[in-house]
Amino acid sequence: MKFVRYGQAGAEKPGFIDVDGTLRDLSGEIADLAGATLDPSALAALMDRPAADFPAVDGKPRLGPPVGAIGKYVCIGLNYKDHAREVGAELPKEPVVFLKATSAICGPRDEIVLPRDSETTDWEVELAVVIGRKAKYVDKADALSHVAGYCVTIDVSERSYQNERGGQWTKGKSCDSFGPLGPWLVPASAVKDPQNLGIWLEVDGDRKQFGSTELMVFGVADLIAYLSNFFTLHPGDVIATGTPPGVGHGMDPRQYLRAGHKVECGIDGLGEQQHFVTTD
Amino acid sequence: MKFVRYGQAGAEKPGFIDVDGTLRDLSGEIADLAGATLDPSALAALMDRPAADFPAVDGKPRLGPPVGAIGKYVCIGLNYKDHAREVGAELPKEPVVFLKATSAICGPRDEIVLPRDSETTDWEVELAVVIGRKAKYVDKADALSHVAGYCVTIDVSERSYQNERGGQWTKGKSCDSFGPLGPWLVPASAVKDPQNLGIWLEVDGDRKQFGSTELMVFGVADLIAYLSNFFTLHPGDVIATGTPPGVGHGMDPRQYLRAGHKVECGIDGLGEQQHFVTTD
Repeated sequence: MKFVRYGQAGAEKPGFIDVDGTLRDLSGEIADLAGATLDPSALAALMDRPAADFPAVDGKPRLGPPVGAIGKYVCIGLNYKDHAREVGAELPKEPVVFLKATSAICGPRDEIVLPRDSETTDWEVELAVVIGRKAKYVDKADALSHVAGYCVTIDVSERSYQNERGGQWTKGKSCDSFGPLGPWLVPASAVKDPQNLGIWLEVDGDRKQFGSTELMVFGVADLIAYLSNFFTLHPGDVIATGTPPGVGHGMDPRQYLRAGHKVECGIDGLGEQQHFVTTD
Repeated sequence: MKFVRYGQAGAEKPGFIDVDGTLRDLSGEIADLAGATLDPSALAALMDRPAADFPAVDGKPRLGPPVGAIGKYVCIGLNYKDHAREVGAELPKEPVVFLKATSAICGPRDEIVLPRDSETTDWEVELAVVIGRKAKYVDKADALSHVAGYCVTIDVSERSYQNERGGQWTKGKSCDSFGPLGPWLVPASAVKDPQNLGIWLEVDGDRKQFGSTELMVFGVADLIAYLSNFFTLHPGDVIATGTPPGVGHGMDPRQYLRAGHKVECGIDGLGEQQHFVTTD
């Protein structure tokens, strides 16, 4: 079962794509894919029902982010061994943690909008973990039981805003549309091993990033346990787990997104995103 | 009119304190002090009504943060001239911007909870600006028309988590209870000049911080205009505008919060907070 939210931005309804590829509506059953409905047991209860219990949706509505009411979008920096090598950085001793504003989140096929005068906007495809059950001071062994599911995200990053405008990375990470999420939420129960997934990103058909979540410095269970020492992870919180090699800022010469570019990316079993790049 | 949200954490109702100090309920009129109800015109319409239109609330319920559904809590670093001098830092050329997780937000009299093993949790009282109307690429001259109102906040900060655990400041800024907000939201129309407000904080009755918003490096209008170049500010977003001199980390010897401490703080015309410090 692939859970989605469909419809206009800000007014998405919950639904799912059935095994035949039909979009079906869940809004008669749940208000949203958010909060308590993300608990693994609540998702399992929905998955136990016959797909035909839920009405098929006509047409091809826009897909929004597959999770609603996201409280925080936590990002992990420099979390792939091969990416760290690529940029000549030492492996971090502890996870590098920062936040992306939730106002940056958009759908899996929405436009990526370059801010006015942006010259250095870059891509970072990442495995996103969606929390399904409150986590505070959890052990690594128990950590994955707090996961609702997984999806694809891009930690879009304006490098000069991030690095040359003073202080923290926030300015380059939180621009509107800089957090596409989707296309769907795949329940944790359907992902055999989150540490063995191929992950890739292309710009105008050129493969820029390619890797495997096997090469994460800190895996999903480690990250959840670690983060839960600092703050409570709530249902609907998203963790973007770092990017594999191939970001534009690490190339020689450097490469960045321009209006008109098409960005495509995906992760094994979690679907694909497509975005056209525009300017604000 | 002082707008409040009262009741149990996570289930607060909207209300206000009338001129006689009586708490009155607004839940018959608005669902929450959040989103569109924060528009300056919507707040003005409520203020035009006679207080007696709204039922008085019995007892002394807990006050929660005076704004609901806060999308992002944006913090400004090193934004007081006298604080910058105190720590020997140069004045920033552009605002230093970072995010605090919204899960850190609590009420104006809730406990401040030290994370397990925390040794270096510090105080930073700040003027909080609550956005009332969407702001993107706004001019300084127009910026204040986007403000719903003002309140007191504390950017509680675990210094070793912030500075010694790798990477960005997030780990030290986003612990649960590290963003007390309140006691009330004072509408912008009732604050003559946000750049001329006394601001103070005491620990166990010792005055630690004292200053005036007059000494901000970047004032409220500047900050809104600046931030709106990077991302949309939405109704309910909060901007914590930096702290005046007197943080514990800047003292010799350094001072930090311990379980049992009482923290009190306030800003002219915006009320006061009181917190007991506990451990997790």
